Amino acid sequence: MNETPLSAGNARLKELRKLSRRSVRTERRLFLADGPKAVEGALGVPGCVVEVFTTVAGRSLVPAGLPDDVAVTLVDDRALAGLSDSVTPAGVVAVCRFVDVDLPAALSGGLVAICADVRDPGNAGTVVRTADAAGADAVVLAGSSVDLYNPKTLRASVGSAFHLPVALAPDPLDVVRAAQAAGFTVLATAADGELALHDPLPAGPTAWLFGNEAHGLPADLAAAADHRVSIPIHGRAESLNLATAAALCLYESARHRAR
Amino acid sequence: MNETPLSAGNARLKELRKLSRRSVRTERRLFLADGPKAVEGALGVPGCVVEVFTTVAGRSLVPAGLPDDVAVTLVDDRALAGLSDSVTPAGVVAVCRFVDVDLPAALSGGLVAICADVRDPGNAGTVVRTADAAGADAVVLAGSSVDLYNPKTLRASVGSAFHLPVALAPDPLDVVRAAQAAGFTVLATAADGELALHDPLPAGPTAWLFGNEAHGLPADLAAAADHRVSIPIHGRAESLNLATAAALCLYESARHRAR
Repeated sequence: MNETPLSAGNARLKELRKLSRRSVRTERRLFLADGPKAVEGALGVPGCVVEVFTTVAGRSLVPAGLPDDVAVTLVDDRALAGLSDSVTPAGVVAVCRFVDVDLPAALSGGLVAICADVRDPGNAGTVVRTADAAGADAVVLAGSSVDLYNPKTLRASVGSAFHLPVALAPDPLDVVRAAQAAGFTVLATAADGELALHDPLPAGPTAWLFGNEAHGLPADLAAAADHRVSIPIHGRAESLNLATAAALCLYESARHRAR
Repeated sequence: MNETPLSAGNARLKELRKLSRRSVRTERRLFLADGPKAVEGALGVPGCVVEVFTTVAGRSLVPAGLPDDVAVTLVDDRALAGLSDSVTPAGVVAVCRFVDVDLPAALSGGLVAICADVRDPGNAGTVVRTADAAGADAVVLAGSSVDLYNPKTLRASVGSAFHLPVALAPDPLDVVRAAQAAGFTVLATAADGELALHDPLPAGPTAWLFGNEAHGLPADLAAAADHRVSIPIHGRAESLNLATAAALCLYESARHRAR
């Protein structure tokens, strides 16, 4: 480890700070994993971590057993804060290679969550975390969905972004058609679905389709699904939070698979 | 309506701005409902809304059919922003009386959610919203839980804080005992429960007990419940988000009640 901490003015750190922008991340296919939890998650994916930056105080948080080709570089507090989006940075940040998979890989399992135009990073990350917990095989972030590599998305996924294959796809309709071609029954969540969540649902590979927080799914996309499924609202709430709805749907499928 | 907008320097507005502090809210049993959605929700509770403040631009957002004893006062943009915690205030804020109910009232139904030391307003509000959707009869925010009247809690509840009876209680253990005395079976969520969520659960009045986001339930509180119930984790996720876990539990009870 280099024993003289780099300062925020260092030219290489200046370049890396640009990874706070989605456009730069996408161009370079690199992102910043912020904090020991995220770095540990990233280390679980072979070849993901490129380099680790830590402060003197953060050294003890660097996970043990780093691969030989991963350098650890000491930086000062201000330099570390520049690489972190946290209000109170934990003292360790890793530069990582993108981990998303291609669409065919995401459509090779039996249970998939497709997010169409999901905009809130907390929601998207929670869907990834919940899909992981429900035993889903993959998540697809489609259309204008928030970036998987947004630090808030990664944080809300609590490591599951590194456990579960996630694919990124520009057109949700293409994803629905690809899923159907791969043998999935596509179930769209809808307030007025012809099926209710606790009805018997189709057996076999299932892809759940979730829409935007405010607007739900566009009509053409809901129509392209094999079925539209509504979650019963028993009280006076108008609707459910997107991540909550996704949890109920994915766990419903998990229950069917466990039988 | 007073046609000369009050400015932020107005002495009465200065006093009302203090309602941004929990201690002042609790002392006066008054809070600020921010935005047309919250004001509309508050108007659904008889006697809740004391006074409405709006900007010229926000006037059209003031719900129709205000009770005769509710004054609408015009304020300028800066004064309105001072009453709002939103980055982009919607232009209407209401001063409201507390709507929480006492514990016996909250324990008069058949399905209740008890939050013990839940600290994140987004989580607490989402639990209230989800409990409403699942047809629960009440929510209890117990112990060091976040304030129901925190603007973020109210926002995450999307109006359900005004639909559903919510009780505030200092000691979670007292709530558990009161629920049991009222005939409820108390089910604590726990990673290592002796029951799993999809096992047959006890019939009759059910109170779900949810713990702190980071630490879960204290051992004595989990032990005081009638059963500890774990939600199956099928994949590699370590746990579920608190609001997600609550949704799965409450909807599981809703499914039983619908039979």
